Amino acid sequence: MKTRAAVAWKAGAPLTIETVDLEGPRAGEVLVEIKATGICHTDQYTLSGADPEGLFPAILGHEGAGVVVDVGPGVTSLRPGDHVIPLYTPECRQCKFCLSRKTNLCQAIRPTQGKGLMPDGTSRFSLNGQPILHYMGTSTFANHIVAPEIALAKIRPDAPFDKVCYIGCGVTTGVGAVLFTAGVEAGANVVVFGLGGIGLNVIQGAKMVGADKIIGIDINPAREAMARQFGMTHFINPKDVENVVDAIVQLTDGGADYSFECIGNTKTMRQALECCHKGWGKSVVIGVAAAGQEISTRPFQLVTGRVWMGSAFGGARGRTDVPKIVDWYMDGKISIDPLITHTLKLEEINHGFELMERGESIRSVVVF
Amino acid sequence: MKTRAAVAWKAGAPLTIETVDLEGPRAGEVLVEIKATGICHTDQYTLSGADPEGLFPAILGHEGAGVVVDVGPGVTSLRPGDHVIPLYTPECRQCKFCLSRKTNLCQAIRPTQGKGLMPDGTSRFSLNGQPILHYMGTSTFANHIVAPEIALAKIRPDAPFDKVCYIGCGVTTGVGAVLFTAGVEAGANVVVFGLGGIGLNVIQGAKMVGADKIIGIDINPAREAMARQFGMTHFINPKDVENVVDAIVQLTDGGADYSFECIGNTKTMRQALECCHKGWGKSVVIGVAAAGQEISTRPFQLVTGRVWMGSAFGGARGRTDVPKIVDWYMDGKISIDPLITHTLKLEEINHGFELMERGESIRSVVVF
Repeated sequence: MKTRAAVAWKAGAPLTIETVDLEGPRAGEVLVEIKATGICHTDQYTLSGADPEGLFPAILGHEGAGVVVDVGPGVTSLRPGDHVIPLYTPECRQCKFCLSRKTNLCQAIRPTQGKGLMPDGTSRFSLNGQPILHYMGTSTFANHIVAPEIALAKIRPDAPFDKVCYIGCGVTTGVGAVLFTAGVEAGANVVVFGLGGIGLNVIQGAKMVGADKIIGIDINPAREAMARQFGMTHFINPKDVENVVDAIVQLTDGGADYSFECIGNTKTMRQALECCHKGWGKSVVIGVAAAGQEISTRPFQLVTGRVWMGSAFGGARGRTDVPKIVDWYMDGKISIDPLITHTLKLEEINHGFELMERGESIRSVVVF
Repeated sequence: MKTRAAVAWKAGAPLTIETVDLEGPRAGEVLVEIKATGICHTDQYTLSGADPEGLFPAILGHEGAGVVVDVGPGVTSLRPGDHVIPLYTPECRQCKFCLSRKTNLCQAIRPTQGKGLMPDGTSRFSLNGQPILHYMGTSTFANHIVAPEIALAKIRPDAPFDKVCYIGCGVTTGVGAVLFTAGVEAGANVVVFGLGGIGLNVIQGAKMVGADKIIGIDINPAREAMARQFGMTHFINPKDVENVVDAIVQLTDGGADYSFECIGNTKTMRQALECCHKGWGKSVVIGVAAAGQEISTRPFQLVTGRVWMGSAFGGARGRTDVPKIVDWYMDGKISIDPLITHTLKLEEINHGFELMERGESIRSVVVF
């Protein structure tokens, strides 16, 4: 079949809208009509050429929502008409990782996904006979995609695509890090470094589970207001204090019970660890640092009880947890609408990248 | 009263045996006759002058066992005749740390303990009217000590002092890190960096809880035999392989479920983290690095699910867990006797330090 898609032909160039060829689903695969997709920093990172694992030509996008159109042989958990969110972290429920019960990092299709291919080692996209690669197993910048059954979360049919698509990455990354990775409990003091989209989702996750102090850290004072709407109780601008770690320790009577780094800066990762409370403070790295950069600290920080950990896709098991997060949104337990600052047509997708680069959007969503 | 003690008059000098004055117990304090004490690297570290927090003159020693002789006003949990192990990490059961249920690092008497004083800010030891400082709240190189009630674990009366004194530090540090800090479960793969006394105790802790592969890492091949006796199943000498992390990942089909650094070397701390399994591997720093040294890694190691943490006194709550560990020894679940390689008189204590410095002992115990 034919479908429209924004194609990334090479690093550093704008996307172009093309009508591409899409092969139907093979065994274990599903054809999905994408209804809406967010534009995320990770797409930008790959498109810029900075991602050493980036491949071209490809159809980017990994934060979508849509409807099942057709299923390949052997697919049992989905059928046409089901609403789904594509998962760049799948959940096969059968690999060593899924069965460990300790991680969400299913590795069932990791090698082919990293190469921009379906699990059988081929691509379903092409144009004039030239294959175009998949991206993160999702490629939600296409109006139709083929994805493995294990990489699709079935969600309730009444959830609006143009909002819950954000659960495909940003919301889950932030809220999940609080709930699934850190396991924040009611009454805890939480510190959030970086009040962009992920930071705001960490804040609302912390509020949802009943955290006590929720302290936001950002050098941009304009971000304070929105963060307070999402549940932030205290704001510290590092430019306004002599030492941000000391300021946090003072405000929390000894340090954070949990801290989250949502910037990707190795210096703030160190601060996030060292502002944690002696004896039990856990610091979770969410932000992605530039290639080759390293974090460091004195081992004394760990020996006296602080824990340094990280989170990918919020520690969420896609097929199990993403539908729950959709429910929480529909029940009003978490908020998404104010975070979707721009809604665009596919033809405007490059404008969405510009808005993100200029810091003018929290999240732009393309609606097909 | 008078008692005999090995006194550290200044950094770098041998201890001298003196008959010192010891004041009786004040409110909340207990007079203990020390029956046996181990000699630990931490005593050596302080005596050498390398410890920036070391104070002199002091009576060192922190790994003892003895009998209660007298109690001060208000002491309710101990009485004369009780057998006890002094605790350099007390357990008040009332401070923020004890009540958190998340740490063993009771802070009730930390400020005065760090200054070599009893909680009321004075010392009980003196010689010719000159005060001599306590050390780690224990000072087990004296035949009699005064210690706070909250810093004494009551143990069963049939446990031999010259063996269970080692539970006052080394055994608990190693076994506890496995049980209380890491929570190693049956079937896990465990890697231990450094096969000295602490490493051997980590190994027997891992064996006790049913670990699967227990892999020891040491550049000294002479340590393999004893480690195998304690439960090590595989030995890797880093000198024999190109890359010790790769060798571990290969041997464990993906990496260690738990790793323990028992050396105090920041390079092996990094290796211990990076040999952990993607998704869930936990690395526990036990060894104490030289002042000012830092650990580092790529944050990707954490984001892909590895956890970096530390352990002090094995995560054990002294009054609650030390008596249990004594029981495990008496029940034959853990072994101590082969680790006590030398038994000395107090007059021979400097020889014990020499044996340790030359690596000829695992543990020397002074019996009063």
